[in-house]
Amino acid sequence: MTSRLSGFTLRRRVQFAEVDSAGIVHFSRYFRYMEEAEHAMWREAGLSIAATGCEVGFPRVAAAFDYQQPLRFEEEFDIHIRIVKMSARSISYRCVLRRGEDTIASGTMTIVCVDRSVTPLRATPFPSEIADRFEVAADID
Amino acid sequence: MTSRLSGFTLRRRVQFAEVDSAGIVHFSRYFRYMEEAEHAMWREAGLSIAATGCEVGFPRVAAAFDYQQPLRFEEEFDIHIRIVKMSARSISYRCVLRRGEDTIASGTMTIVCVDRSVTPLRATPFPSEIADRFEVAADID
Amino acid sequence: MTSRLSGFTLRRRVQFAEVDSAGIVHFSRYFRYMEEAEHAMWREAGLSIAATGCEVGFPRVAAAFDYQQPLRFEEEFDIHIRIVKMSARSISYRCVLRRGEDTIASGTMTIVCVDRSVTPLRATPFPSEIADRFEVAADID
Amino acid sequence: MTSRLSGFTLRRRVQFAEVDSAGIVHFSRYFRYMEEAEHAMWREAGLSIAATGCEVGFPRVAAAFDYQQPLRFEEEFDIHIRIVKMSARSISYRCVLRRGEDTIASGTMTIVCVDRSVTPLRATPFPSEIADRFEVAADID
Repeated sequence: MTSRLSGFTLRRRVQFAEVDSAGIVHFSRYFRYMEEAEHAMWREAGLSIAATGCEVGFPRVAAAFDYQQPLRFEEEFDIHIRIVKMSARSISYRCVLRRGEDTIASGTMTIVCVDRSVTPLRATPFPSEIADRFEVAADID
Repeated sequence: MTSRLSGFTLRRRVQFAEVDSAGIVHFSRYFRYMEEAEHAMWREAGLSIAATGCEVGFPRVAAAFDYQQPLRFEEEFDIHIRIVKMSARSISYRCVLRRGEDTIASGTMTIVCVDRSVTPLRATPFPSEIADRFEVAADID
Repeated sequence: MTSRLSGFTLRRRVQFAEVDSAGIVHFSRYFRYMEEAEHAMWREAGLSIAATGCEVGFPRVAAAFDYQQPLRFEEEFDIHIRIVKMSARSISYRCVLRRGEDTIASGTMTIVCVDRSVTPLRATPFPSEIADRFEVAADID
Repeated sequence: MTSRLSGFTLRRRVQFAEVDSAGIVHFSRYFRYMEEAEHAMWREAGLSIAATGCEVGFPRVAAAFDYQQPLRFEEEFDIHIRIVKMSARSISYRCVLRRGEDTIASGTMTIVCVDRSVTPLRATPFPSEIADRFEVAADID
């Protein structure tokens, strides 16, 4: 694998336990959707966000969503995630959820690479086998 | 009850199922903490965010968190929520999580009042029995 | 569609937020896995467990799991669900989770059909368009 | 502390995100309620179910619930948990949820003590500082 990944799209269906009593997906759940797409992108890159025995971890330092339209039970939707910024120690993603042509919500998330053996957590450069697999997306809007 | 509420503090303990495999509270969980404090504030105001038979609902249109320090299993912490903006149809909150003197994370959330009987959802003014119970906090920083 | 369904198998991957701080899928999560397979079976039968405007609902009256082996992050596994008992007002399922040849856990769940317009909830016969789509599995062990 | 604990009661309020689109607490959530009461009992005994650096862990090998009545948003209820069986390597609990005088649901859960440093997980005797803090409840019905 020589090409670098800058984005990924995951198709997903709304599950029953994700819907709240207002009949729409609970707003906190979108952050898990964004994370599922991120982890699928890492797998596509041949990596795991939480590899056994790995000395670094990737806590989130910021996350946000703007909600345009509700999602309902059993609807299928796409989670588009792209890398919009990358430094030695952090990656920022932008994420858009779409149901067909409709934009449901758009979010952002920033992760940092930390040394898991140190307390308190402190940022450290991504190992090259991770850094070399990703790049910033060309089509940032 | 004549005084209006502009904030609330809820004490909470981290539960086991809220902690992820990195040993810290999962980042998506903070949005539920913020919401729990919001709903406790509404109860303190004599209201329910989801009253039976109520014709209006309060979907979230934006939510965000910045994470400073991790929270761990069984730690006690405070969720401080304040109203930082109010209009006829929306309320914006600011929320800070603290463990003792330490700031853990700070978030924001905006809700709108919608008529539940109309599809698609459309913003409508808060009923006066709700609007009259709240006001913007004086100590916005 | 004239044939009746008696079981279904859903392939699933363990997501990060489903794993607890012991590094294994939290035991409460298995009940959601079982339910996801049930709902996929209903969709396969051309039905929805929570159809818009439907006058009946299907609360669970019993659910149980025995856990044999742990599931870990990113593992793929199969959720096999079968109907083991059916009456006019209830369906009982048996569910086995397998990772390859390994049995991870086995569970049971019983649902009843209730009239949603009545309080308190009271069992009522399944509508024929639902009852006619399912049957008890032949291979109950 | 010389007396042994055999049970505990935790008061809890239903939170919004725990309620599903049928307007009742999702059935999987009851297992988290049972676990919260268990962990509160361990804290009451001066212990933590997941102490930092602890060499043993306590996976669940069986869990079940029977559901009698629904729980709804903002209702307060009590989670009563009691030890009904104890051996060198396992503890079995019985749990009843009540809202006032009404029984909502009753459950069971069995945990085993395992050595966390060994794979696959294998049962090992509870350390005496744990075993000495608990006993079977006298009033098992």
